[in-house]
Amino acid sequence: MVEGVARVEGERLGEFDLIARYFAPLATEAAALGLRDDAAVLRPPEGQEIVLSCDTIVEGVHFLKEDPPESIGHKALAVNLSDLAAKGARPYVYLLALSLPADAASSWLEAFASGLRALQELSGIALVGGDTTATPGPLSVTVTALGLIPQGRAVLRLGAKEGDRLYVSGTIGDAYLGLRVLKQPALGRFWGLSEDDTAFVVDRYRRPNPRTDLALLVRNFAQGAIDVSDGLMGDIEKLARVSHGSALIEASRVPFSQPAQKALAREPELLEALVTAGDDYEIVAAVPEMSGDAFETEARAKGTSVTMIGRMDGSSGEARLIGPDGNTVKLGAKSFSHF
Amino acid sequence: MVEGVARVEGERLGEFDLIARYFAPLATEAAALGLRDDAAVLRPPEGQEIVLSCDTIVEGVHFLKEDPPESIGHKALAVNLSDLAAKGARPYVYLLALSLPADAASSWLEAFASGLRALQELSGIALVGGDTTATPGPLSVTVTALGLIPQGRAVLRLGAKEGDRLYVSGTIGDAYLGLRVLKQPALGRFWGLSEDDTAFVVDRYRRPNPRTDLALLVRNFAQGAIDVSDGLMGDIEKLARVSHGSALIEASRVPFSQPAQKALAREPELLEALVTAGDDYEIVAAVPEMSGDAFETEARAKGTSVTMIGRMDGSSGEARLIGPDGNTVKLGAKSFSHF
Repeated sequence: MVEGVARVEGERLGEFDLIARYFAPLATEAAALGLRDDAAVLRPPEGQEIVLSCDTIVEGVHFLKEDPPESIGHKALAVNLSDLAAKGARPYVYLLALSLPADAASSWLEAFASGLRALQELSGIALVGGDTTATPGPLSVTVTALGLIPQGRAVLRLGAKEGDRLYVSGTIGDAYLGLRVLKQPALGRFWGLSEDDTAFVVDRYRRPNPRTDLALLVRNFAQGAIDVSDGLMGDIEKLARVSHGSALIEASRVPFSQPAQKALAREPELLEALVTAGDDYEIVAAVPEMSGDAFETEARAKGTSVTMIGRMDGSSGEARLIGPDGNTVKLGAKSFSHF
Repeated sequence: MVEGVARVEGERLGEFDLIARYFAPLATEAAALGLRDDAAVLRPPEGQEIVLSCDTIVEGVHFLKEDPPESIGHKALAVNLSDLAAKGARPYVYLLALSLPADAASSWLEAFASGLRALQELSGIALVGGDTTATPGPLSVTVTALGLIPQGRAVLRLGAKEGDRLYVSGTIGDAYLGLRVLKQPALGRFWGLSEDDTAFVVDRYRRPNPRTDLALLVRNFAQGAIDVSDGLMGDIEKLARVSHGSALIEASRVPFSQPAQKALAREPELLEALVTAGDDYEIVAAVPEMSGDAFETEARAKGTSVTMIGRMDGSSGEARLIGPDGNTVKLGAKSFSHF
C-alpha cells in the first residue's frame, strides 16, 4: 500500500514492468513461471535433498554505495553460492528480494541484473522468483538460494572430528584490505601496493568468488565444512564448537595473496584483522588425515588451491591461532559482528 | 564486515546469541539444524512439489513504526502464507532475513518472535534458517516460504477460463481503512466507526489473516487463483491477463465488512480505493460454473465465506468493474504500485 514511489529515470515503471524488463530474462527455469506468478513451483530431482541458504546484503554494511551495481548483483548471489558450496551442494535455483530506494536508475538496474546474470551462467543457477519493493532506506538485497545434494550427503558444520586436517581454499584477508583501501586510498601506498595489487584486493571485496567448483570435493572428502564470511578464526570456532571439538590454526600456514603479504610485511599487526575480518567467501573443510593428500591433489586438478592451516585438536570448543613462536596469538574478537 | 553495531538494550548480543535466544525456539524442524548452520537441509516428501514465495515488508512502506512488533512478525509471515494458499499449497518451512536498526530492543525482538510463533503454530510451518544483519535504514523483514503440493496440482494465475466464476474470500478494503485511520484518527469519527469498528480495520491492516484453510479447496476447485495483495481489481487483472482472458466484476457483489459499509455510506467515493488499495490478503479463485456451488458450500463448511463477484468474460486482458447502473466504473489505477 501507499508511500514509496520510485522513479526509474523519469519514467514510472510498475513492479510488473520492472520485473519484466530486468529480471524475467534471468528466469531461465520453467519453475519460474516467467516470474508472472507470485510463486514458483519446483519438482526437485528424485533422490536429492534441498539445501537452503538466505543472506542479505545492505548498502553501507556489506557493500558501498559507490560499488559498481554489477558487482552488487554479483555479491548478493555469490555469498549464497558460497554457503551452498560449503555444504557440498550444487546450485539449483534462487529467489531475489530487492528493496530499492526512490532514486534507483534504470542503468543501475540493468548493470545489477547483468552482474547476477554473469554469475548465474557461471554457476548454473536460475532465478525463479522474488519480490521488488520500494524502501525509504538504503538499497538492500536478500537472496534465497536452493542447492541440490544426494540424500544424506550434505556436509554440515558439526561433523569435524579430532585429528582432522583443516583446509582453507584460496587466500584470506584480501577483501578486508580492499575495503580499507576503498575507504582510505592512501593506505595502498603505505602498504606498498601496486595499482594491480589495489585492483586485486578491491575486486576481492566487491566480487567474491564462490567456490562452487569445490562443492563436489567438499562432499567427497570433508566431514565438516563452513564458508568464511564473518572471519576465518570465528568461523572455524563455530565449526569447532558445534563439532564438540577445538581447532589449532598455525598463523604461518594461513595463505595470503602477494598484495596481502606486502601489506603484512609493512604492518605485521594486520595479521589479526586479516584472520578475523571475514568477507572472504573461502571454504574451510575438515578432512580426515588419511584423505588429506587426495583432497589436495583433486582440488589442484580443478585449478583451486587448498591449504592445510591446522587441525582439529582437543574439545574446548575454541579455535586458537598459534604464532611462529609456538604461542597462542591473542585476538580481540575472532569474527566481525554486526551486533 | 565492519559498520553497523546494534545494541540490544545496552547489552551487545552477537548474531549467534540473538539467533539462539529469539529464533532457535522457532526452529522446530530437524532440517533447521537448530539454526546453528548457515544452511538448512530438506528432504521434501515423495510425490510433492515445492511452492516458493518470497516477500519483503519494510517499515514505513508495509507497516508503521508504531505497529506492535508482534503484528510485524505476524504480517511478515502472513503475506507469504497468503501466496502459498493461493497456489493451493500447504505451509512447509520458511526462512527469515531480518535487517535490524541499531536501536532494536530485546523486548521488541521478543514480541516480534512471538508474533511469528503464534502464526507458525496456527499454520503448521517451521523456521529453518535465515539471516540477521544490521541496517542503517528502516527495519525490514524478508520471508521466503516453502509450501508443499502434490505433483502437478499447483494452481497458477494463468489457468482461468472463459465463463469461470470469480470468487473472493472474506471482505475487501478493511486494511486500507485501517491504515487511513491510523494516520488520521479523525477519519474514524467522520466515517461513523465505533471503537470496535476501528479496532477491526486496524487489525486487518496489521494482522492479515492468510487463508491457509482455503488452500485445499483452491486446489480442488480453482483453475486459476491469486491472492489480493496489491489491490482487488489490479490483482484480478493480472490473473486475467496471464490467462489470456478478461474479468467482469460487479461492484454490488464485492463483499465489504460492516465498518467498510459504514464508511462507504458516508463517503461513496471510497469504493475505488477499497477495490484497488490492496493489503487484503484474501484469495481470488476462478472456479468453473459447474463447481461453483460446491466450492461455496465446502468453504462455508470450513467457516470461510467466499463470494462470487463476477466472471471471466472476454479476452481483452482487462478487469472491469461494473457499477449498479451497468456502466464501467472508471478507476485511476487498479492496484497500488511502489514504483
